[in-house]
Amino acid sequence: MSRIRVAVNGYGVIGKRVADAVLLQPDMELAGTADITSDWRIAPAACRIPIYAATDEAQHTMLASGIPVQGSLDELLDSSDIVVDSTPKHVAAKNIERYRSAGLKFVLQGGESHQTTGHSFVAEANYQSALGRESTRVVSCNTTSIVRVLGALDNANLLQKARGVLFRRATDPWESHLGGIMNTVVPEDKIPSHQGPDAQTVMPDLDIITIAAKSSHTQTHNHYWTLHLTREASTTEVLQALQKDSRIAFIRMSDGLSALNSTVELMRDIGRPRGDMWEVAIWEDLVTVNGNEAYLTYQVCNEAIVVPDTIDAIRALDGRVEDAESSIRITDQSLGMRQDFLRNRDAAL
Amino acid sequence: MSRIRVAVNGYGVIGKRVADAVLLQPDMELAGTADITSDWRIAPAACRIPIYAATDEAQHTMLASGIPVQGSLDELLDSSDIVVDSTPKHVAAKNIERYRSAGLKFVLQGGESHQTTGHSFVAEANYQSALGRESTRVVSCNTTSIVRVLGALDNANLLQKARGVLFRRATDPWESHLGGIMNTVVPEDKIPSHQGPDAQTVMPDLDIITIAAKSSHTQTHNHYWTLHLTREASTTEVLQALQKDSRIAFIRMSDGLSALNSTVELMRDIGRPRGDMWEVAIWEDLVTVNGNEAYLTYQVCNEAIVVPDTIDAIRALDGRVEDAESSIRITDQSLGMRQDFLRNRDAAL
Repeated sequence: MSRIRVAVNGYGVIGKRVADAVLLQPDMELAGTADITSDWRIAPAACRIPIYAATDEAQHTMLASGIPVQGSLDELLDSSDIVVDSTPKHVAAKNIERYRSAGLKFVLQGGESHQTTGHSFVAEANYQSALGRESTRVVSCNTTSIVRVLGALDNANLLQKARGVLFRRATDPWESHLGGIMNTVVPEDKIPSHQGPDAQTVMPDLDIITIAAKSSHTQTHNHYWTLHLTREASTTEVLQALQKDSRIAFIRMSDGLSALNSTVELMRDIGRPRGDMWEVAIWEDLVTVNGNEAYLTYQVCNEAIVVPDTIDAIRALDGRVEDAESSIRITDQSLGMRQDFLRNRDAAL
Repeated sequence: MSRIRVAVNGYGVIGKRVADAVLLQPDMELAGTADITSDWRIAPAACRIPIYAATDEAQHTMLASGIPVQGSLDELLDSSDIVVDSTPKHVAAKNIERYRSAGLKFVLQGGESHQTTGHSFVAEANYQSALGRESTRVVSCNTTSIVRVLGALDNANLLQKARGVLFRRATDPWESHLGGIMNTVVPEDKIPSHQGPDAQTVMPDLDIITIAAKSSHTQTHNHYWTLHLTREASTTEVLQALQKDSRIAFIRMSDGLSALNSTVELMRDIGRPRGDMWEVAIWEDLVTVNGNEAYLTYQVCNEAIVVPDTIDAIRALDGRVEDAESSIRITDQSLGMRQDFLRNRDAAL
C-alpha cells in the first residue's frame, strides 16, 4: 500500500521528535517540516528533512541564513496526506481552516482545546473512534500518562476513582535560559487542575481530581496517585493490570533509580535519541496497596511521551490500520519502546 | 596488526563513555569493564560489554542482582594489554601496583596527580612524548580544554600569557539528587585555582593564572579568557589559529546559541550519544581582539571532553601509531567529531 505522506508543521520540542519518529515508520513518509525559525533549532534538520517556511517572512530569513527552504507551507500541505500541527499553544486552532482548504486530515497537540477537533486521542484508549476521522487532538503529556495508567487499571475493572498530585517541570531545558522559577514550588491557582477534566475527554466516565504544582526542575513531570479500587486487591493484581499496557515501563528504587535525574541519565545510557523516554515510568517497588486503596508514583518525560500516540493518531486518521493493537505494535517496535529498561519484563513479575 | 585489548576499570561518567569509544576504534578491542556497582548504572552495559567485578564483595552483589559477571578484575587485567582507570578520584593511585604486577600499561584520569605517572597527556600537545611509555594521565576536563585552546594560539606564536575565569558546573546530572549547591555561586577558596598549574604539566612554559567558581547548574563548564598576545593581531588571525585544532568547534550567538543549555540541546538534536560534546565549543562571534589583547568564551562538556584524548593516550602507550595526527584522525572520525555543528567549517571562515 502507498505510504502516508506526513507534514509536520512546527519544528519545536514535539515537532522535531514526531518528524524523527515518522522517518522510522514503515508505512509513512515525511513530506517535510515547516517552521519560522532560521537558527540552530532548524539548521540540524536541513540535511535530513525537507524544510518549508511557515510564513513569507520566515522564508526570507531562512534563505538569508542558508537554510535550504523547499517552499511554502502551502506547498508542503499540497504534497501531504496528513499534517501534524506542533506549533505553539493556540496557534494550531488558527491553522485548521488552512488544512481543510488543502483537503488534509490533521492531528493537533494537547495545547489546543478538545472542541477544536471534537476528538481527543490516546492510542490505547480510543484509537478505534478516531478511525478515518478528519482530525483528532493528541492530549498533553500529563493527560496521556494519566489515561495510560488509569486506563490500564480501568480495563482490569479495578479503578473506582483517582486523586492525583502532579509535580510539573518548570520549563523545558532548551529554553531554561529565557527564564523560569527557581528554588520554589508554585501550586497551580485552582483545584482541580485541568489535567483531570482533560483525561475525561478520552475517558468520560473517569472519576478523577488532579492537583498540580510547578517545581524548580527542568526535566520530566512526577505524579503521585491515591486510587480507590473497586475491591480489595493485591499488589500483584495491580501490577499485572498495569503491565498490560505496553507503554508503561517499570523502574525500581531497588535498582538505584531514586530520583528523576537517575531515570534521565539511564535514558542517555541506553542510547535513547535526545535521551527521550516515550513510556510512563512507574516505580514498581513503590506500588502500594492497602485493602481497596492503591498508591503509585510515576515519571513522565514531557518532551517525548506523546510522540508514539501522535504516530498512532496519524495511522488512525488514515484508516487503513484498523485496530489499535496493530498500530501500537508497529510504533513501539519502530521506536524501540520497552516495558523494562534493565530486565526482560516477562521475567520480572 | 593485532588489536589493542583495552580494559576499562570503573564504569562511571568517564568510564562508560570511554568503553563506548573503544568499541568504535578500528584498532582496539574492549576486553571488558570492571566496577563495583550492581544497579541501573551497570545493568545497561550487560548486553554489550563483558563485565568484571572489581572486588570479591562486588562480584557477590552483582551476581545476586543478575549482572552476568565474567570474572574478577585480575582476570580482566590478565586478558588485556592496556587498562584505562576511571575509578573515582584518588582510587586509581592505589591500583597502579596491581597494573604493574599484571604487566599492563595504564592510562589514569585527571583526578590523579601528575606524579602518579610522571606524564600528563593532551593529544594535540604531547602525544609524541607518551609514545611507548608504561603510563600516562589524561588531564581533567577543564585542563584539556585549556591546553587545546591556548595550545592552538601558542602554536601560532600568538600567546604570551593567559588569565582565565572558570565557571564550573556544580555536580553531574546523574548524581544531582545526592546534593549540590543551588541558587548561589561558590568562588574557589584560593587563587590561582589548580587548573592553571595543571595545564603547565602539559605545557610547562605557559604563563597562566586561573580563577574558578562553582555555579548552580549541572551541565558543562564555561570559561572566560583574557589573553595577552605576542603582538597585535586581527580577529581572523586568532580564529584561524584556533581552527587548526580539529577538536575546537565554533558556535555562534547569531545562531541563537545564547546559553549553555542551548548547546546542550543542540547536542541532543544532532544525535550525539548521551548528548555528548567532545569538542571545546568557542563562541566565534564573541572572539574579540583589541590590539594585543584577545578575549574569548567557551563551553566544556565535562562528561565527554576527555574521551577522545583517552583513546589517543591508549594508542600512544601502545606505540604503533607513531604520530599524533594519525591517531587524532582515527579517533575524530570514529566518534564523528566536528568543528562546526551547523555549517561546513571550511565555508565558515
